[in-house]
Amino acid sequence: MAMRRVVEVYLDLLSQPCRAVHILLNCNKIPHTVRTVALRRGEQRTPDFTKLNPMQKVPVMDDNGFVLTESDAILKYLANNYDIPEHWYPRHPERRAKVDEYTAWHHTNTRPHAAKVFILEVLIPTQTGSQVDEARLNRALSQLNDTLDKLESMFLRRQPFLCGDDITLADLLAICELMQPIGGGRDILEQRPQLQHWRSRIQSALGESFDQAHAVLYSVRDRRKAKL
Amino acid sequence: MAMRRVVEVYLDLLSQPCRAVHILLNCNKIPHTVRTVALRRGEQRTPDFTKLNPMQKVPVMDDNGFVLTESDAILKYLANNYDIPEHWYPRHPERRAKVDEYTAWHHTNTRPHAAKVFILEVLIPTQTGSQVDEARLNRALSQLNDTLDKLESMFLRRQPFLCGDDITLADLLAICELMQPIGGGRDILEQRPQLQHWRSRIQSALGESFDQAHAVLYSVRDRRKAKL
Repeated sequence: MAMRRVVEVYLDLLSQPCRAVHILLNCNKIPHTVRTVALRRGEQRTPDFTKLNPMQKVPVMDDNGFVLTESDAILKYLANNYDIPEHWYPRHPERRAKVDEYTAWHHTNTRPHAAKVFILEVLIPTQTGSQVDEARLNRALSQLNDTLDKLESMFLRRQPFLCGDDITLADLLAICELMQPIGGGRDILEQRPQLQHWRSRIQSALGESFDQAHAVLYSVRDRRKAKL
Repeated sequence: MAMRRVVEVYLDLLSQPCRAVHILLNCNKIPHTVRTVALRRGEQRTPDFTKLNPMQKVPVMDDNGFVLTESDAILKYLANNYDIPEHWYPRHPERRAKVDEYTAWHHTNTRPHAAKVFILEVLIPTQTGSQVDEARLNRALSQLNDTLDKLESMFLRRQPFLCGDDITLADLLAICELMQPIGGGRDILEQRPQLQHWRSRIQSALGESFDQAHAVLYSVRDRRKAKL
């Protein structure tokens, strides 16, 4: 009989959604193998990787031949099919629906708005050697502020986590995006105690898996600081 | 004992995700009440509606006091909690994951790219009285073409529907977006037989609920044509 392999994930930990997958696997001790795909070296465009995911994006999951892309779908698949605490993706219909509601909103709000700040402040200047475009950065920060306002006033208005009393996949996806500007030395939650407390609750819930996933991002920040 | 009310949905049928919700309810004969929120009259910004959904967006579902936004989440909630054929959102783990994968991808591909063509060709000229910005329209059409290529070469490569052998929520969300440029008299699937056949399969599966949901869009197209 064929041996069942552990789940394989293709990740670059500088990618926000990859970190969310990495954290879920580690903090729940799901046996897995990480295959690193270094985006900065274009490894997502190799023939082998393109065969695995023609979209040439990470993360990708391979669970004994079942290949799945999109972090949102991967996290839900893992929560549905591996033995992890139910709070991550509740089976209760209304609580599950609230997680689906946040994750849908996330794709056009938290994700693009936080990512853009990192792209303008770190990626583009590093790749092109040019100065930061301050006008574009200010517009991006203003859009991000609007998203942070909504996270506070709507999702976290009456509850400690985005979708209720306990941590879910929604918090995981959100915090990994909101950490990204840290790579440029910018803590976007600095003036926002409500979101800071939420981040602390997440860090307590995740334990060391949080810092393990973010170690690469912290080293980007530290190398940039050393250069100044 | 309190009477259980039928599910209420707040919709504007000129909005693509609203049509997807409308079709799922009608073709599965889920008893419901439609509350029309006319976006062109700004009804999403009234105090009552803002209280219901502070994001001021449609669709919104109210199932006996449980309020849910985001079409993606509403469709999944309805499929999980109402008695409709399982193919819409399969319970089989891998098939369900493929629907989640498409819907995640949809938010940053099919949805924005098809919507932009309609916005540039119909909404902006109608609201401002200005000519269509041809340069921006051509860029939007080129991005949309890239999305259509991916729908054909990846999702529909070896199967009749986006996520397998039968119609799912993914097809419903996708077709409602891809129909939108019809409002400006543009059938973006005109040169694409593979996607046309897929659309025909969807129309067969949906019956009259498809044209009922699109009647408002067809009348936008016809009024514009009459003016030329």
